[in-house]
Amino acid sequence: MATLSVFLDVPLVTETDVALDVYRADPSRKKVCLGHAGCQTDQGDEPWIPPVVQRVLLQISQDPTLDHEYLPRLGMEAFRRAAMELLIGKENHALLDNRAGAVQTVGETGALWIGADFLRRWYKPNHSAQATVYIAVSQLGYLGCIFQVAGFTDIRTYHYWDPVNLTVDTEGLLEELQNAPEGSIVSLHAPEEMGLTPEEWEKVAAMMEQKQLFPFFNIEAQGLASGNLDRDAWALRHFVDKGFELLCAQSFSRIFGLYEEHVGNLIVVTKDNETLIRIQSQVAKQIGMIWFCPSSLGGRVIAMVLTSPALLYEWKQSLQALVKRIMLIREKLKEKLRILGTPGSWEHLTTQSGVNSFIGLLPSQVEFLAKHKHIYLLPNGQINICSINSKNLNYVAQSIHEAFVSSNGRDSTDSDDTMIQTVPRIKWQSEIVLNK
Amino acid sequence: MATLSVFLDVPLVTETDVALDVYRADPSRKKVCLGHAGCQTDQGDEPWIPPVVQRVLLQISQDPTLDHEYLPRLGMEAFRRAAMELLIGKENHALLDNRAGAVQTVGETGALWIGADFLRRWYKPNHSAQATVYIAVSQLGYLGCIFQVAGFTDIRTYHYWDPVNLTVDTEGLLEELQNAPEGSIVSLHAPEEMGLTPEEWEKVAAMMEQKQLFPFFNIEAQGLASGNLDRDAWALRHFVDKGFELLCAQSFSRIFGLYEEHVGNLIVVTKDNETLIRIQSQVAKQIGMIWFCPSSLGGRVIAMVLTSPALLYEWKQSLQALVKRIMLIREKLKEKLRILGTPGSWEHLTTQSGVNSFIGLLPSQVEFLAKHKHIYLLPNGQINICSINSKNLNYVAQSIHEAFVSSNGRDSTDSDDTMIQTVPRIKWQSEIVLNK
Repeated sequence: MATLSVFLDVPLVTETDVALDVYRADPSRKKVCLGHAGCQTDQGDEPWIPPVVQRVLLQISQDPTLDHEYLPRLGMEAFRRAAMELLIGKENHALLDNRAGAVQTVGETGALWIGADFLRRWYKPNHSAQATVYIAVSQLGYLGCIFQVAGFTDIRTYHYWDPVNLTVDTEGLLEELQNAPEGSIVSLHAPEEMGLTPEEWEKVAAMMEQKQLFPFFNIEAQGLASGNLDRDAWALRHFVDKGFELLCAQSFSRIFGLYEEHVGNLIVVTKDNETLIRIQSQVAKQIGMIWFCPSSLGGRVIAMVLTSPALLYEWKQSLQALVKRIMLIREKLKEKLRILGTPGSWEHLTTQSGVNSFIGLLPSQVEFLAKHKHIYLLPNGQINICSINSKNLNYVAQSIHEAFVSSNGRDSTDSDDTMIQTVPRIKWQSEIVLNK
Repeated sequence: MATLSVFLDVPLVTETDVALDVYRADPSRKKVCLGHAGCQTDQGDEPWIPPVVQRVLLQISQDPTLDHEYLPRLGMEAFRRAAMELLIGKENHALLDNRAGAVQTVGETGALWIGADFLRRWYKPNHSAQATVYIAVSQLGYLGCIFQVAGFTDIRTYHYWDPVNLTVDTEGLLEELQNAPEGSIVSLHAPEEMGLTPEEWEKVAAMMEQKQLFPFFNIEAQGLASGNLDRDAWALRHFVDKGFELLCAQSFSRIFGLYEEHVGNLIVVTKDNETLIRIQSQVAKQIGMIWFCPSSLGGRVIAMVLTSPALLYEWKQSLQALVKRIMLIREKLKEKLRILGTPGSWEHLTTQSGVNSFIGLLPSQVEFLAKHKHIYLLPNGQINICSINSKNLNYVAQSIHEAFVSSNGRDSTDSDDTMIQTVPRIKWQSEIVLNK
């Protein structure tokens, strides 16, 4: 047998996002991780799970009448329908016309991958070889990789957040969309958290219609921005009402606490039922070769909750309680920083909503927190508000204060920091240069 | 808004495998489906699930100490390790040398996809652009599609089964391997069911070593061929002992009755630990973009059963009981056909083992069964032995008899049938011509 491996040329992938690993390895009692992907309980260090979900999980395991066969390739019909109705609304005319459909996927990432792979095969605006893809600069590391590996080569970024003034920059966004090549795909990640008003979304939709841009929504936590499921779906529903064809990746991990079961849904809205059927047949074929069919438990739980009025009511109550806690943490953190006299404005803490926030930390400050305070977050400065709880709030606020005082607030002279202020988080771009 | 869809050019995919759909739609009380993917109970029409699996499922749902976070990208460590040990053996030197590793996947299909995608990116024998892939002719429809969509263009078939004499054709197989381009990838699907003796496997391994062929195993139902978990892993372990680098997709659906949770494992055996680490880092990156991480329930059940001596013992007993039932069905069916005087030899029913069998039905006979007898199976004539039970055995035997009598046994004059006899199931090749 040959002694040399046939895989000598395979390079090692080194990960840049190691916040959670470093946190786990830190023996300090003071340590805090602000980089959790999901929502934690107020006790910290364990995922928030609505009580109704835990009850339904128990009920399913004791139900002898349930079918244990493989799911169909497109997933569980009851789940797909209920999830889609939750997002685009039961009375939506696209649903009534049978031109909106859904595909159960392995998490939100699975929905994004299947969608990107489908678009690369079949979306050819103006008969060009391949569409340009626009991704919000803060999402380039995650979404850029998916589109690049799916085969897109022209991937560009757009901005909607002014990192200097810490406000939404709608004018800048509209200008970037106006300059996009016709027919480009625009990823609209977590629109419920972007902070645009309905009037601003109307302008974005009008510009996208004018330039024939294709929207690919990615809705991570419907309900967790405003506490109102319908309000958080406003932007998507507006695009549907305007007659756009679109894709939407829908995630359930945070709002159902079902991280470990990892359920997603890919929603397809098109012009007519016949087109939808053709698209779904292609997606079923793709899925048959990638994971054959999704697993069932997560989808079953969600379908049961969404289709029972009593369970649905209880779930909504839990969701609203979580949103209240998130807003309270935002207010308390702002107040603490005000009392401490931390340099800079902290108004954006409460004008923003939802779980994830760019609170305006510079890379040197992120490093300070890790090095001196045992506080870990993603290098792009994004924090998960739910990782702050009544136990660690004072410590986190005091530490942020010290990080700011030690580095002259947001007026950094560190060259990396300066770059981040003008082109926020552009450093992530390096991640999308895959080895192959 | 434009009124025409941007997806006008997307063609409809028409499926060829509709046996189960037609079966479900048939109102007849006599109907039988012989095309189930999984193992059914002797009562029919529901999947066989070992009692220990049902108990563990209940236990998990009531355990308040379990972690509900996302799994790591490569899956649950306890599952990956236990599953790999089951297949290649706890004391295997590849394991002790830390040069064998595993990745939890979304079903066996997920393992095949991730493996094929990895090989397309990184396996370049003789620095050629792309390796040739060899697939058993009966698996071309399923595996050919996966390799083709992963980007392989030179996909060829091999034969190991003589469809006229209904016996294993090892000489033919060795000849085809000898003629393969050096460095080709050879898919070895369900080696435990192929029917080769250890001596024949040794010859196959020697030929593959001589031609530097790369083995990609696919083990669907370890234990269900012989009833002995180690014996069913003999071929794979022999390749590992000979020093091959290889991949192996491992499935748990049938042996654990966990169809709906759809768990797979991709095993990587390489030359040294450092190469394994590099390969796993690439696979983790791939998975991060396709499904991010697998779901947990199925892997958790399997890990719990495999790592508890008491539960493992009980599971093995259940598996052996199932294997006894399968052999009994094979014997009873052979005996019934002998008594009825059905033309042709039926010895192969009991010389073969395992769940799936090509029992020698011609396409015209498959059609006869569907049309006149409400008995449905895949167009390639493969049947799932577990779909025959004490309730339907007489009816199935009588129907097969009538199908054979009405069409002169295996001496068909139907042109499609003749082609199948010389090149079995080559019709499936049409499936791999994808629309894109």
